[in-house]
Amino acid sequence: MRPFAVLGVLAILSLLAVSSEVSDVVELVQPSPNGIDQPEDYLNWRVLSVSSRSDNGTLRVILGNDVASSAAEAGETVPWPDGAILCKLVWKQVDNPGWPAAGVPGEFVHSEFMVTDSELYESTGGWGFARWLGLDQTPFGSDESFANSCFSCHLPMAEQDYVFTHPAPVPSKTALVPD
Amino acid sequence: MRPFAVLGVLAILSLLAVSSEVSDVVELVQPSPNGIDQPEDYLNWRVLSVSSRSDNGTLRVILGNDVASSAAEAGETVPWPDGAILCKLVWKQVDNPGWPAAGVPGEFVHSEFMVTDSELYESTGGWGFARWLGLDQTPFGSDESFANSCFSCHLPMAEQDYVFTHPAPVPSKTALVPD
Repeated sequence: MRPFAVLGVLAILSLLAVSSEVSDVVELVQPSPNGIDQPEDYLNWRVLSVSSRSDNGTLRVILGNDVASSAAEAGETVPWPDGAILCKLVWKQVDNPGWPAAGVPGEFVHSEFMVTDSELYESTGGWGFARWLGLDQTPFGSDESFANSCFSCHLPMAEQDYVFTHPAPVPSKTALVPD
Repeated sequence: MRPFAVLGVLAILSLLAVSSEVSDVVELVQPSPNGIDQPEDYLNWRVLSVSSRSDNGTLRVILGNDVASSAAEAGETVPWPDGAILCKLVWKQVDNPGWPAAGVPGEFVHSEFMVTDSELYESTGGWGFARWLGLDQTPFGSDESFANSCFSCHLPMAEQDYVFTHPAPVPSKTALVPD
């Protein structure tokens, strides 16, 4: 192969590598209109609770980051400490074909996050709200005012630090197993 | 303080330290009658799915160890790979006082585990079964034959590797975020 042909092949390979990187960047989840970034590793967070809503036929799991999980384990969630982040994953509820009396996750609806920062989010009870729609995780809300509707729905829970979730009871014995 | 008094205090302190360690050991969860040990860190495993059973009024979350979580992410769960462990945490379902149309976890019922090892558990579809009752995690079953009743209930799911759980769809975009 002639030198120019080699250079040409190398140039094409370089372009392919660059476009592959660009494609990765484009695939990243965009921030919420109020500037909240989606936490990177929320799928690995500890489960705090689950819920089944008969009013809209959805199933939910509530996860917590390290700060939230530690607070839940210590029973110190009124108020939740600054830095706690709660994540709720929501699915349409469908019957499990293998056991129809069991409702299980169907279509993924959205992910929701509540981020505590008593100063930054003072006007909404110390909580920043964010939601991303569907499996492609499109940010919810056209501007930052969307969070007011989130907060108004949470207002009746003022005595529980505006949070509907009570951490589910889980066994504590395994915590005594040495690492 | 006289030398003997000092020694006496030290002896008492040593005994207290030893009894504290013994107390930790006693609190550990005992193995299942078929010899399966409870995994140490299952509360930190990734959530794979949730379910709500109308036939017995319970809510469940299904967690997976690293092998199971990777298999679920890759969509390679028929069969699940050797080494996969599934954990199911079960609660009685009660209404959330703050939102009565939402069923949420009440009393903790039990933890259940399915452990894959196609050779060791060949007689029960390649799965070892274990269950621990209540928050004090008492092993279920008087002898190892209890697993036959577990397996007989899972037999109709033979085409799904004897597993009722289908991993719930979750967004994959965050996986592209650099560490």
